[in-house]
Amino acid sequence: MSTDKVQIFDTTLRDGEQVPGCKLNTRQKLKIAQRLDELGVDVIEAGFPVSSPGDFNSVTEISKLVRNASVCGLTRAVKKDIEVAAEALKYARKPRIHTGIGTSDSHIKYKFNSNRSAIIDRAAEAVAYAKTFVDDVEFYAEDAGRTENEFLAKICAEAVKAGATVLNIPDTTGYCLPEEYGKKIKYLKDHVPGIENVIISCHCHNDLGLATANAIAGVTNGARQIECTINGIGERAGNTALEEVVMILRQHPSLNLNTDINPRLLFDTSNMVAREMGMMVQPNKAIVGANAFAHSSGIHQDGVIKNRETYEIIDPADVGVTESAIVLTARSGRAALAYKAKKLGYELTKLELDSVYIEFLSFADAKKQVLDHDVHQIMELYRKNTRAIA
Amino acid sequence: MSTDKVQIFDTTLRDGEQVPGCKLNTRQKLKIAQRLDELGVDVIEAGFPVSSPGDFNSVTEISKLVRNASVCGLTRAVKKDIEVAAEALKYARKPRIHTGIGTSDSHIKYKFNSNRSAIIDRAAEAVAYAKTFVDDVEFYAEDAGRTENEFLAKICAEAVKAGATVLNIPDTTGYCLPEEYGKKIKYLKDHVPGIENVIISCHCHNDLGLATANAIAGVTNGARQIECTINGIGERAGNTALEEVVMILRQHPSLNLNTDINPRLLFDTSNMVAREMGMMVQPNKAIVGANAFAHSSGIHQDGVIKNRETYEIIDPADVGVTESAIVLTARSGRAALAYKAKKLGYELTKLELDSVYIEFLSFADAKKQVLDHDVHQIMELYRKNTRAIA
Repeated sequence: MSTDKVQIFDTTLRDGEQVPGCKLNTRQKLKIAQRLDELGVDVIEAGFPVSSPGDFNSVTEISKLVRNASVCGLTRAVKKDIEVAAEALKYARKPRIHTGIGTSDSHIKYKFNSNRSAIIDRAAEAVAYAKTFVDDVEFYAEDAGRTENEFLAKICAEAVKAGATVLNIPDTTGYCLPEEYGKKIKYLKDHVPGIENVIISCHCHNDLGLATANAIAGVTNGARQIECTINGIGERAGNTALEEVVMILRQHPSLNLNTDINPRLLFDTSNMVAREMGMMVQPNKAIVGANAFAHSSGIHQDGVIKNRETYEIIDPADVGVTESAIVLTARSGRAALAYKAKKLGYELTKLELDSVYIEFLSFADAKKQVLDHDVHQIMELYRKNTRAIA
Repeated sequence: MSTDKVQIFDTTLRDGEQVPGCKLNTRQKLKIAQRLDELGVDVIEAGFPVSSPGDFNSVTEISKLVRNASVCGLTRAVKKDIEVAAEALKYARKPRIHTGIGTSDSHIKYKFNSNRSAIIDRAAEAVAYAKTFVDDVEFYAEDAGRTENEFLAKICAEAVKAGATVLNIPDTTGYCLPEEYGKKIKYLKDHVPGIENVIISCHCHNDLGLATANAIAGVTNGARQIECTINGIGERAGNTALEEVVMILRQHPSLNLNTDINPRLLFDTSNMVAREMGMMVQPNKAIVGANAFAHSSGIHQDGVIKNRETYEIIDPADVGVTESAIVLTARSGRAALAYKAKKLGYELTKLELDSVYIEFLSFADAKKQVLDHDVHQIMELYRKNTRAIA
């Protein structure tokens, strides 16, 4: 079976950038857009042009810069938004307008004070209007995660009729369980006329820690685009993390799905985005966290030293990390101490190792981490004591 | 249908603490253990007693302190480990020994240089030996995620025969997809004789960002214990995050599963662990991140002001956060500005709001975040200008 391509739609510069404290200036956005283009993303959502003059300007400049990816601008189902987005995207080689409206009962009632049939009309009109400016129009059904499937299929069908090329099914509040989200995608695959000519897109939020799992459930049920951000940043608990979905598809060839992302740029791109946005990545973040490839317990270190694959499913070099770290702590065993000592130039016999290890443990119990210079100190102490006895 | 209880097995002080940089002293461990007991966890894995004198001492002191939870000590399938753990746990009201061995071909071959039948023997002997010290013995099949199901069922059956009360099925390398992990649990439910008398436990790692989803797939397929840590800390990319699985079960009553955790302590407990370990939580962390309940885009802020549930599935107060934050940025709309201005004492007419909003946008485009004192400044500027014209 040949593998199917999943498009990567990066929204670091839109959903990611709208986060408290993450605002970037145009120069920073261009730098990140350039890198996303090199990384191999299929679509860069560059901003929400009508929202502010700064955003409009950034979308314009990114449109001029980007070589390979489509450049996308977000709009509400509002004529003015669409006109402004079209204007901002006019220099893009492959422009995409992303328009849509809330479709859950909660959104229809509280946000729009409207009803289902009026919402369908607004959706279709927005798509058709966007289509007068660009060929590539993505429709989003906001809060699709909490939208009843039958109505969702109906509004999607109208969006397809109006010319949508991509249907975005956002779990806006991050509420869905993976199985439930997968079933929703499958329902649309089975019930929307013309669905075979458009791409279904997953846009998942991480409020319950399930954004990555939900996106994977989406593509295994027929979606072929994932909306995601570097480091999983985004509104509230963030979005699906680009680096996670890309590596899941790579590590699970049985899914028969792939992306065009160059994984060797992942670690560096993560660092760049964290730095530019001042949005730090926790050490225990999957794929790109500082500890993602660090082994500290004795059992794990021993295993990794014997054979990397005992505890590592990903070769750190594959994502641009140079070596998996063996960090010495009070949890480290003899094997790790011997490994590190050898790296630092000390070859120990088994008997020597036993004695040095006792020294090491009392040292390590008092410290969070035993660094290289500590190992030198332990070895000196040990040798001094041995000499004294001899 | 009545709801089933899922036991929460917290390993913050064992899998979490063995992380580079996370080492705690005994006083800190006691403080966290006390809090975990108040939080309502069922089991506290307090350490790996044989690994160092400091760890032994901590397990002893935690055993004396804890009132409600079981206290658990980790061991390898090694007599000495088990004896030392039993000794460290002797003051515990409800002691549990957690023993086991690697069961995947990779572990059997590279780590133990052994074979399947010898590994089964070691497993059964370890469980039986632990059982001579305590009633409650949990068996772990390390790297169960990559262990072939038929062999896994076989070794689990022997562990049950030898007296295990809990079977821990770790996805040690964080490789499994949720569907695959769920099927593994179901396979054991269906194929291990005596499984109806023991609890199956999920211990998932987050290397691909799926630890939470995998644990949920486990309990929906019959497991009744989740091993997890506060903030999802742990080896490499960490473990299942306690706060995420607890809130998923609460938010999805249709799963008919619950825990005894008091969610109102989650946010404060997260802060305590982050502080004591010096292990920061990224702002976009689900449930406990600084931004988890922060709304910044105009569309979202507008929605939340109209009705909280438009964008929030969890009432922040339920997890101990006092108010969802409306953060003003260049992405904020008029509704958010009006909301914030009102909170600060300015009632604006629609016409006034339009003028102030223009002022606000040029201000916001130059700043990451518009703080309360900035709003005061914008209002003063506006009023001065209006007076000048009038």
